[in-house]
Amino acid sequence: MTRPSLGTGAEFDLIRRLLDASAPDPPRVALGAGDDCALIEAGEDYLAISVDLAVEGVHFRADWGTPELIGQRAVRAAASDLAAMAAVPIGALVALSVPDDRDPGFTVRVGAGCREAAEALELGIIGGDLARGGSELRLDVVAVGSVREPLLRGRARAGDELWVTGRVGAAAAAVEEWRAGREPAPEAQARFWRPEPRLSEARWLVERGASAGIDLSDGLVADAGHIAAASGVGIEIDAGDVPAVSGIDLPLALSGGEDYELLVAVRQGIFEEAVVEQFEEVFGIPLSRVGRVVVGHGVRVFGDGGQEMELETRGYDHFA
Amino acid sequence: MTRPSLGTGAEFDLIRRLLDASAPDPPRVALGAGDDCALIEAGEDYLAISVDLAVEGVHFRADWGTPELIGQRAVRAAASDLAAMAAVPIGALVALSVPDDRDPGFTVRVGAGCREAAEALELGIIGGDLARGGSELRLDVVAVGSVREPLLRGRARAGDELWVTGRVGAAAAAVEEWRAGREPAPEAQARFWRPEPRLSEARWLVERGASAGIDLSDGLVADAGHIAAASGVGIEIDAGDVPAVSGIDLPLALSGGEDYELLVAVRQGIFEEAVVEQFEEVFGIPLSRVGRVVVGHGVRVFGDGGQEMELETRGYDHFA
Repeated sequence: MTRPSLGTGAEFDLIRRLLDASAPDPPRVALGAGDDCALIEAGEDYLAISVDLAVEGVHFRADWGTPELIGQRAVRAAASDLAAMAAVPIGALVALSVPDDRDPGFTVRVGAGCREAAEALELGIIGGDLARGGSELRLDVVAVGSVREPLLRGRARAGDELWVTGRVGAAAAAVEEWRAGREPAPEAQARFWRPEPRLSEARWLVERGASAGIDLSDGLVADAGHIAAASGVGIEIDAGDVPAVSGIDLPLALSGGEDYELLVAVRQGIFEEAVVEQFEEVFGIPLSRVGRVVVGHGVRVFGDGGQEMELETRGYDHFA
Repeated sequence: MTRPSLGTGAEFDLIRRLLDASAPDPPRVALGAGDDCALIEAGEDYLAISVDLAVEGVHFRADWGTPELIGQRAVRAAASDLAAMAAVPIGALVALSVPDDRDPGFTVRVGAGCREAAEALELGIIGGDLARGGSELRLDVVAVGSVREPLLRGRARAGDELWVTGRVGAAAAAVEEWRAGREPAPEAQARFWRPEPRLSEARWLVERGASAGIDLSDGLVADAGHIAAASGVGIEIDAGDVPAVSGIDLPLALSGGEDYELLVAVRQGIFEEAVVEQFEEVFGIPLSRVGRVVVGHGVRVFGDGGQEMELETRGYDHFA
């Protein structure tokens, strides 16, 4: 497979410097860095592997929830990388470092949350590492799955339609409320702490023709940018069609991360009304056309009147 | 494969509580938690996957070396998990979180160290994750390899001999010096920062009959204890036969971790003098018989006069 190009921004500039772009991938590596998972040849299919880190004070704050929820969120977010490749979950490895001042019960409760999420997602906990020390809890989850027909970031083509599952913005809204010292709505808290990786949805969409895709972890516009960069195309988003959770401001729905919905590209006309209805019936969440793939590069967002919108923030960049 | 039993100590008690021992491993998982790597069925062989965490202030201190060495050590230590299974390296995923106060050059230099080590070990960097924040640098490395005949902890039998590659104690001696505010000998520093995962040695030993094994990360006695627990046997070590680096105290050689040498069990009499000579010729390091596997449980260490030694510390336990 072709190695996908990385997107723009300081974080990707740094990743480019960390990777040796000229080095060939080793034997059996069908896809190296640059997509949601690496793909390793494994007989009749591929194993998909990713690592997802969660640092206290950066990705979450312990006082926003319970130790169990910290574990839940880490495993669910990691499993979303498998959904982004349309992979079937196999297992997770959990690397956990716990500050000295937490009592042993805290660690056990974080682990219980990991286990509950893993069971719900049919992932086994198949390994890990533990350390005590450091000032913040840190939880890295390695997700392992299998896939025959992977959903890749780099397969979008000009003319494709862009679709998104579910509704976006709630997780970012919860974070905004917490940061402002307010209590978020229960549904928003749930979306932040217990996101639903769209594992079955991804495989369903690939079977019906989705040709490129990503999960929404950095935000709709930022993640659309990753598809654009990897595919060498431009993307246009119609803001009015973005399925924001009710009560969520549009800018937050466009740039807020960690919804873990899927954004897929599909050839024009394939997702007919009957397909969309069937999706919504099977999964109980909407499937919405939000834009199109064009010749060019980058992401542009258009308002209801067709005018281009300027966004203050396009998504999360740790190194911006 | 049978799931190995975990060893003794607070850390393992905690891991037991984090894992659901009654849950069956998912399909395709040939070996779940409890050995150096998980093993996933991958056509004609297995993929071996492990995650190894390195936390600043816990596993290393930045002022003991350079940013490049931090990266070197993390990737080399992770690759040692592949050696412990006699696996062939494929790739590594690197999850790096960097405190806000480090300049971008620091992160780039840590990454360069990772890349240098990966190249030397013929591992591709095939993925990862990056975040900025937290008070300590943390670097988790996921190692992925392939193996047909894995070296497992749980295959030692009473009557086996116990052998160790290379010399032990230098990494622990370096840490002891640094902690005392002294400058360790250059060779000891090198053993700490640039350990040699015994990848080729492991495969060579398996081809010649090694039946169980582990890499020395927690210390010789502690890691022998992991083999004993996983195999349901006892282990006896003859302290006088332990190949300590010259100038290293025996207790440090027995309990000091992070040498990343291999400890293997082999049926009695298989490693004849000619085999040992050939090993030392091919790899340029000693291969030493250090003890035996017996009926029973736990690890006992005997001095030159045959008397049992009491050890003050048996190895590193994060949660002791």
